[in-house]
Amino acid sequence: MPVNQQFLLDNRPSGEAVTSNFKLVSSQTAALQEGQVLVCHHFLSLDPYMRGRMNDSKSYAVPQPLGQVMQGGTVGEVVESRSPLFQPGDKVVGMGGWQQYSVVDAAQPGALRKVDTTHVPLSHYLGAVGMPGVTAWYGLLKIIEPQAGQTVTVSAATGAVGSAFAALAKARGCRVVGIAGGPDKCKYAVDELGFDACIDYKLHPDAASLSKALKEACPKGIDGHFENVGGMVLDAVLSQMNAFGRIAVCGMIAGYDGKPLPITQPSLILLSRLKLQGFIVSEHMDVWPEALKELGTLVATAKLRPRESVAQGLEAAPEAFLGLLKGKNFGKQLVKLI
Amino acid sequence: MPVNQQFLLDNRPSGEAVTSNFKLVSSQTAALQEGQVLVCHHFLSLDPYMRGRMNDSKSYAVPQPLGQVMQGGTVGEVVESRSPLFQPGDKVVGMGGWQQYSVVDAAQPGALRKVDTTHVPLSHYLGAVGMPGVTAWYGLLKIIEPQAGQTVTVSAATGAVGSAFAALAKARGCRVVGIAGGPDKCKYAVDELGFDACIDYKLHPDAASLSKALKEACPKGIDGHFENVGGMVLDAVLSQMNAFGRIAVCGMIAGYDGKPLPITQPSLILLSRLKLQGFIVSEHMDVWPEALKELGTLVATAKLRPRESVAQGLEAAPEAFLGLLKGKNFGKQLVKLI
Repeated sequence: MPVNQQFLLDNRPSGEAVTSNFKLVSSQTAALQEGQVLVCHHFLSLDPYMRGRMNDSKSYAVPQPLGQVMQGGTVGEVVESRSPLFQPGDKVVGMGGWQQYSVVDAAQPGALRKVDTTHVPLSHYLGAVGMPGVTAWYGLLKIIEPQAGQTVTVSAATGAVGSAFAALAKARGCRVVGIAGGPDKCKYAVDELGFDACIDYKLHPDAASLSKALKEACPKGIDGHFENVGGMVLDAVLSQMNAFGRIAVCGMIAGYDGKPLPITQPSLILLSRLKLQGFIVSEHMDVWPEALKELGTLVATAKLRPRESVAQGLEAAPEAFLGLLKGKNFGKQLVKLI
Repeated sequence: MPVNQQFLLDNRPSGEAVTSNFKLVSSQTAALQEGQVLVCHHFLSLDPYMRGRMNDSKSYAVPQPLGQVMQGGTVGEVVESRSPLFQPGDKVVGMGGWQQYSVVDAAQPGALRKVDTTHVPLSHYLGAVGMPGVTAWYGLLKIIEPQAGQTVTVSAATGAVGSAFAALAKARGCRVVGIAGGPDKCKYAVDELGFDACIDYKLHPDAASLSKALKEACPKGIDGHFENVGGMVLDAVLSQMNAFGRIAVCGMIAGYDGKPLPITQPSLILLSRLKLQGFIVSEHMDVWPEALKELGTLVATAKLRPRESVAQGLEAAPEAFLGLLKGKNFGKQLVKLI
């Protein structure tokens, strides 16, 4: 069996996460038991939710245990199989973690899913046609429930979720306005992702200034918002929401380090009769097939052309992850493992 | 025609509302036109929403115009009629405003509604069997959607909305925990209104302390919350919400004076996958008949025995209103006009 490089969570961050929270180790992969398969990971997905799990505090998921392999989504290839469900050569998506190989009980529901790479590149099953894409789909379709002609906004617009959100919302006849950091991302959002406009939040020192920019980009107000960030962005968006607006709360990335990020004017929830709803896509597995079908079609027909930031080699994972938390990535953040 | 005492909004508050914002005037009531009726008001309702309308800022309602009669709900008796729809002696509920008489176009939809005082005292049509009662009904049934055995909470528990909320939630098999100010209100909530427990927020200097008290009173966590106040109470409640909890946002009374009342930990919306939804009951007239029917039955069968704070005479209205904003009332705040 091959030698397997792995990243463990060595210690929990106090405040900002740092590379020394992780520890690189290597071990021999275990011999397969009956019903197990060995997967060689091609790509590891890095996602903001991982930061929340690094804390020991209340979270929606069990904290990432110390001394164990960092959890994470992976795509790869079955290299050995003692299960009738998978053959060597099968391309699969799973939760292999921050490591080069994983041994998986093939019959465990949801553990491993075979994917077709004829029209969709393998890596996209970690992004647009994977968890981030379904996340955008759920927030848009099940919480925001937009109507044609309405205006919807999304923060972290050029990320894996934001880019899928744009394609899904455009397909429903919405005006889609993004919020992203820096002129390059904003240009890309409009030129490549189909956003009608994109606001560079880095140009705005406070919520009032950002709010004014949103008002210009959304002259009819905002009917639905998909929140990936929190803090100043959410404050600014709240001030521009139309009556009966819906806000899907998917991420509070700016708050994972423990900095207080209040909603400064919650009375707007009442004044504008808003709905704010938090959700976690893994709790809504029933919608995945429908969502993945639409997302796969959008990618296959080039209506969704997601960008990827690819770090090279497992050793690069911690730095790439910390960069993701600071918005240094451009599109879906991956680590290429082979 | 009789002389009519009226309170006008004379000037807008800067910060806290004060009695000098109001001006008492008297005028002759106009002679009735064809289709109009003259109503002699027996009771005027004082409600927190009035404070919001005194501001000129963005609100869900058009601001109360300066120099005009303060708007407000009233119950009374038709004393003269030039409409076939109403006879002198009819008991009616309407939006007569802060004055002794009103002249009403009887055919205008929703302007005037005949009520039956056989089993329900007239004044209750401004409270438990009126707008506040329907407000509790809508928030509980349409937003919180409780199941038997779940725990629900409400702030301003002994007010008109809170007391109706308790009766409605008990009828659905919920554990109901109130939050109110002072030992008398808390005792009344448990002894008379059917709350399973009631927490005196005045005993708690901060959200952490209040949160601890909530945890004791709600050992299974909170599944639904009805927010009448905002600020520290909402912060404390958020920390005790169960996964998939629902919060009906009906009032932010503590914020009407312009003091910032942030939600300090909005990440809980995500972590606990909460839904927060603001609403205004006057935008949901379709539910009123069903709600009023249940509320009327609860009152007629003494399952809901709402308390009233009654100020005597129109002149007492401003002081009583300012007291209401500070929680000095005990139960539904009314002004008796005859």
